[in-house]
Amino acid sequence: MHNMTKVAVDAMGGDNAPEAIIDGVISALKEKDDIFCYLVGKEEIIKTYIGSKEYPQDRIEIINATEVIETAEPPVNAIRTKKDSSMVVALNLVKEGRADAFVSAGNSGAILVGGQLIIGRIKGIKRPPLAPIIPTEKGASLLVDCGANVDARPQHLVQFAKMGSIYYENALGRKNPKVAIVNIGAEEEKGNQLVKETFPLLKECKDINFIGSIEAREIPHGYADVIVCEAFTGNVILKMYEGVASTFLSVIKEGLLSSLRGKIGGLLIKPVLKSTLKEFDATQYGGAPLLGLNGLVVKTHGSAQKKEVKNSIIQCATFKELKINEQIQEKI
Amino acid sequence: MHNMTKVAVDAMGGDNAPEAIIDGVISALKEKDDIFCYLVGKEEIIKTYIGSKEYPQDRIEIINATEVIETAEPPVNAIRTKKDSSMVVALNLVKEGRADAFVSAGNSGAILVGGQLIIGRIKGIKRPPLAPIIPTEKGASLLVDCGANVDARPQHLVQFAKMGSIYYENALGRKNPKVAIVNIGAEEEKGNQLVKETFPLLKECKDINFIGSIEAREIPHGYADVIVCEAFTGNVILKMYEGVASTFLSVIKEGLLSSLRGKIGGLLIKPVLKSTLKEFDATQYGGAPLLGLNGLVVKTHGSAQKKEVKNSIIQCATFKELKINEQIQEKI
Repeated sequence: MHNMTKVAVDAMGGDNAPEAIIDGVISALKEKDDIFCYLVGKEEIIKTYIGSKEYPQDRIEIINATEVIETAEPPVNAIRTKKDSSMVVALNLVKEGRADAFVSAGNSGAILVGGQLIIGRIKGIKRPPLAPIIPTEKGASLLVDCGANVDARPQHLVQFAKMGSIYYENALGRKNPKVAIVNIGAEEEKGNQLVKETFPLLKECKDINFIGSIEAREIPHGYADVIVCEAFTGNVILKMYEGVASTFLSVIKEGLLSSLRGKIGGLLIKPVLKSTLKEFDATQYGGAPLLGLNGLVVKTHGSAQKKEVKNSIIQCATFKELKINEQIQEKI
Repeated sequence: MHNMTKVAVDAMGGDNAPEAIIDGVISALKEKDDIFCYLVGKEEIIKTYIGSKEYPQDRIEIINATEVIETAEPPVNAIRTKKDSSMVVALNLVKEGRADAFVSAGNSGAILVGGQLIIGRIKGIKRPPLAPIIPTEKGASLLVDCGANVDARPQHLVQFAKMGSIYYENALGRKNPKVAIVNIGAEEEKGNQLVKETFPLLKECKDINFIGSIEAREIPHGYADVIVCEAFTGNVILKMYEGVASTFLSVIKEGLLSSLRGKIGGLLIKPVLKSTLKEFDATQYGGAPLLGLNGLVVKTHGSAQKKEVKNSIIQCATFKELKINEQIQEKI
C-alpha cells in the first residue's frame, strides 16, 4: 500500500451514480495498478451493483454511508448536517490521511464547501480555486477559478496564477506555461477594478510566465495555458463554451436534416466530425481539481460517464506522483 | 426633411472605411427613402470614392473633418483633443439636433466616451449601456451591458433591464420580452455580491417581465430575450460567442479536409451550412445601440462590411419611428 494512491470516491454523486462511478473506478484500477479506491455510499446498493463485476478486490474497499447529498441542496447546510453522507464520509477519509484524494460527480457547491471545511486549506492559501481543463484549438488550457470564489481579491488571483502554473506544468507536461488574465481588451489600462489591481501584481510575480491580458475571444484559440479570472467570470466562460458548442451543433444538425443533400453530406462527415469533436472533449483530462487543499479534491461533471470518472481517478495518481501539492506548499 | 431620420455617419471609422461605410450608406438610402445621411470625414477621400457611385444626391451631405481617431488611441484623450475628428464632428451634429443618430465602426471606447460626453445622457439615466443583439437558437437576444460600464451597481442594472425591454419590444417586435440576469446558478441565493443585490430589485420591478437567473450555458439556446449583466461579464459573453463559434468552425473544417470522404461530405453540406450560419449572423440586426442618450449612438463592428453598415443605418430609422427614446424618457 505504500506507493499506492488512495482515492475516496463518492459512489452516490452525479446523474449516473452509482453505475458510472463504479464502472469508472474498476476501469481506473485495471488501467493502473498503483491505485486503491474507497467506494463510499450505501453499501447494499454498491454491493448489488459491483457483485456482478470482475474487479481487483484487494484494491477496493466499500465504506458504508447512509445519507446522500442531493444536487439541489444548499451546500453549507448539507455538509454540516449530513454527517453520514457519502460525501462527508469520503472527505473525512482524506482528512484522516486514509485517502490522498476525493472524487465526486455530486453537488458542486457541497464539494467546494466540504473540501474547504473538512479537508482544509494548505497554510497560506487564502481561497482554493476550482480549475477545470478546457479544450482549445492548440490543446488544453487551465481555467482558474471557475466557480469556487466569487468576488475574489487581487491577492487571491495571484495565488490562482501560481497554483495554476504548477498544476499545468506538471499535469499537462508543458514547462513554463503562459499565464494570462481575462480582460476586456489587450491594453494594461483596460478592465474592471479587480483586473486593474491584479495586473501589476501578476507582472511583478517572478514564479510565473505572465503574458498579459487575454480577451475571451482568444481563449478557445489557445493563446494562453493558464487563464486566471474571478470565479463568476470563469463560470460564465466555462458555460458559454458548453452552450455555444451544443447550440452550434444542434443548429448545424437541424440544417443538414432539412435537405436530402444535407442528409447525405451529413452521413459522410459524421465519422470525421465525431473524431474532431473528440479532440475537443475535455473529459479526457479527468475532472476539475480544487487546488490548494491538504489533499486533492476532484469535481467531475454531474453527467460524468465511466470514462470521465476513470480519468478523474487516474488524475489523482498523477497529482500524487508528481508531488503537486508539495510544490504548491513550497512555492506559495 | 420633416419625417426624415438624419444619421451622422463616421466615414473614417473601422477596418473597411471609407469604402464599406459609404457603400453601406448608399445601400441604406436606396432601401429606405426617409433616411438622410451626413458622411463625416476627410472630404477629398470621401468625394473621390463616392464620385464613381450612383446615389441619391439630395439625401447625402459630405461634412469635412480633418482628423481621424485611430483604433488603439486612449478614448477620453482622443475625444477631448481631436475636435476635428470625424467622430467628434459627427457626434456634434447629433448634439446640435441636426442629426438624430450617429453610426460608427471606429474605436469602441471613443464611441462610448464620445456618446456620453458630447451627446449626453437622458435625464435620470445613470449609465448608458451598450446593447448588442446576439443570435440564439430561437432568434435573437439583447445583451445589456456588453462593454460600456464595468463595475456597475445594482441600480444601473435595473435601468439596463428597463431600457433593454423597451428596445427589444420595439426593435424586435416581441411584446413583454423575458428579462433574465446572468448568474452562475438558477437559485436566487447564488451569485456574486452584485447579482445578489440586483436580483430582488429586478423581482420588484413592475415594468419588466423578469424571469430570474440565466446561466451562460442557456444564453445561446435563447431562454431569455433581454440578458442583463455587468459590462465585464457581457463582454466576456459576447467574445466567447465569437471565439467558440470561429474555433469550432475552423476545427471542423480542418477535420473535413483531412480525408477524401470528409472533403466530399464537406462540399455537399456547404450550402446548408452557409445558410444555417447565416441565421446565426447578428449583423442582420445592425450594430449595438448605446441606450439612454439624447440621441441614438450605434456602434457597428470594426470589421463591418456594407451590409452591417446598411442595417445599422436602417436601425436608426426604426429607433426614431418607434419613438424608443421617448419611451425610455417616459418610463425610466
